[in-house]
Amino acid sequence: MFINTTTVRVRYAETDRMGYVYYGNYATYYEVGRVEALRELGVSYKSMEDSGFLLPVIDYTIKYFKPAFYDELLTVKTLIKILPSARIHFYYEIYNEKEEKLNQGETTLVFINKSTNKPCAAPDWFLEKIKKHFQ
Amino acid sequence: MFINTTTVRVRYAETDRMGYVYYGNYATYYEVGRVEALRELGVSYKSMEDSGFLLPVIDYTIKYFKPAFYDELLTVKTLIKILPSARIHFYYEIYNEKEEKLNQGETTLVFINKSTNKPCAAPDWFLEKIKKHFQ
Amino acid sequence: MFINTTTVRVRYAETDRMGYVYYGNYATYYEVGRVEALRELGVSYKSMEDSGFLLPVIDYTIKYFKPAFYDELLTVKTLIKILPSARIHFYYEIYNEKEEKLNQGETTLVFINKSTNKPCAAPDWFLEKIKKHFQ
Amino acid sequence: MFINTTTVRVRYAETDRMGYVYYGNYATYYEVGRVEALRELGVSYKSMEDSGFLLPVIDYTIKYFKPAFYDELLTVKTLIKILPSARIHFYYEIYNEKEEKLNQGETTLVFINKSTNKPCAAPDWFLEKIKKHFQ
Repeated sequence: MFINTTTVRVRYAETDRMGYVYYGNYATYYEVGRVEALRELGVSYKSMEDSGFLLPVIDYTIKYFKPAFYDELLTVKTLIKILPSARIHFYYEIYNEKEEKLNQGETTLVFINKSTNKPCAAPDWFLEKIKKHFQ
Repeated sequence: MFINTTTVRVRYAETDRMGYVYYGNYATYYEVGRVEALRELGVSYKSMEDSGFLLPVIDYTIKYFKPAFYDELLTVKTLIKILPSARIHFYYEIYNEKEEKLNQGETTLVFINKSTNKPCAAPDWFLEKIKKHFQ
Repeated sequence: MFINTTTVRVRYAETDRMGYVYYGNYATYYEVGRVEALRELGVSYKSMEDSGFLLPVIDYTIKYFKPAFYDELLTVKTLIKILPSARIHFYYEIYNEKEEKLNQGETTLVFINKSTNKPCAAPDWFLEKIKKHFQ
Repeated sequence: MFINTTTVRVRYAETDRMGYVYYGNYATYYEVGRVEALRELGVSYKSMEDSGFLLPVIDYTIKYFKPAFYDELLTVKTLIKILPSARIHFYYEIYNEKEEKLNQGETTLVFINKSTNKPCAAPDWFLEKIKKHFQ
């Protein structure tokens, strides 16, 4: 299992008239979480795309326990629990500064070969980097 | 059961570098869907808030089958399958102009009394308007 | 001179904790305005991009007079005052349902040849469609 | 004069199908810039709002020189050149990792008394903190 922790500060743009972070914006915080998780593994999401792989999300689930508010420094915890193959699962938890769990979610992403536009296996060099954490 | 159908045109702002609508933006399209569903039922979401009720989302699930692209005119189909009580479930499907189903999802919203900040039952006048569709 | 009028309804996602439309979101409403203006002229912004032209914005100015609020149906008025050449200027005004002017702005966009990535003249077929309105 | 420097990493959500950061999203980066500038001055924008002052933007200008791309770590430079009174001007410049200036802009914000909803002078404690930098 691999765990990454990163932070995001809530922007004014991300709040809504209820004073909460808009429910749709956590998808972006989760994106930050998984990109930083990959970076910690030595994988740049950008260079993976540039090398010919797309990684679209095929499902996304989130449960909201408490709202996040403007200017809070949130902690995004991203977990890879299962060794990726043709798809990669990420689990997420977001905490506020009082260490209250605000929400948790999951996404599944699939590897797509950019030139064929078809699903494909994860590139070998990518699996090599991740495997170490699953032994 | 109650079904509403509305349309949204994909904005440039909502696309990402993959050329797809960013996976997080469907939450906003679903919001448009449920607000228009309520409007068709004679309920203004805004006036409901103004009358003392908040309706935060407590869970959200989406499955993505195909991407939506820039400038497409999408159809958002919103369904209320279960008569609401203290919570209200919405089901959604989004279709492109070729009538391909692009994604489907669900959200649960809870009624919160603004002054107590606690969950409460749906207001009677709201239930009255919806009940007709569940007989 | 060419004038187009279109409407956008304010989404919850677009409001902020002040209860206003976030100041950065008008750029998106202006985008909707100019795309609909071009559509009325018979030009699909999308097909222009697909045919090899990018149209990035090089400057943008906006003055805010009054806020827009959740669920308001705003009118976006888009004006092309000067016949475009290598660049195209758009002027915008946004009104609420009481016909109060909420803000006004301008953008300049330049034609970029996608293959050379360099500025270029507007395509002839594009100019033909616009010229009629400047005679 | 007061200068603050902070960084933002470009999120996937913020790119558009051109592969650039969407032109409307710099408003959010500038927001991050001015909030961090105020924080460095010892002023929490949030607590200023909580203490009864709103600070809406009344004008905003930006000139775009070069695009920003996905995953770039941008530097936002925020300058307060003029001692604020009933309004506060911010100047901004954004640089990429090659130290190329990507864009520059300005915003004017006005102090609004939340209870009267009318423009008012900047609170004294706020001016005190800023004044030191203008001597």
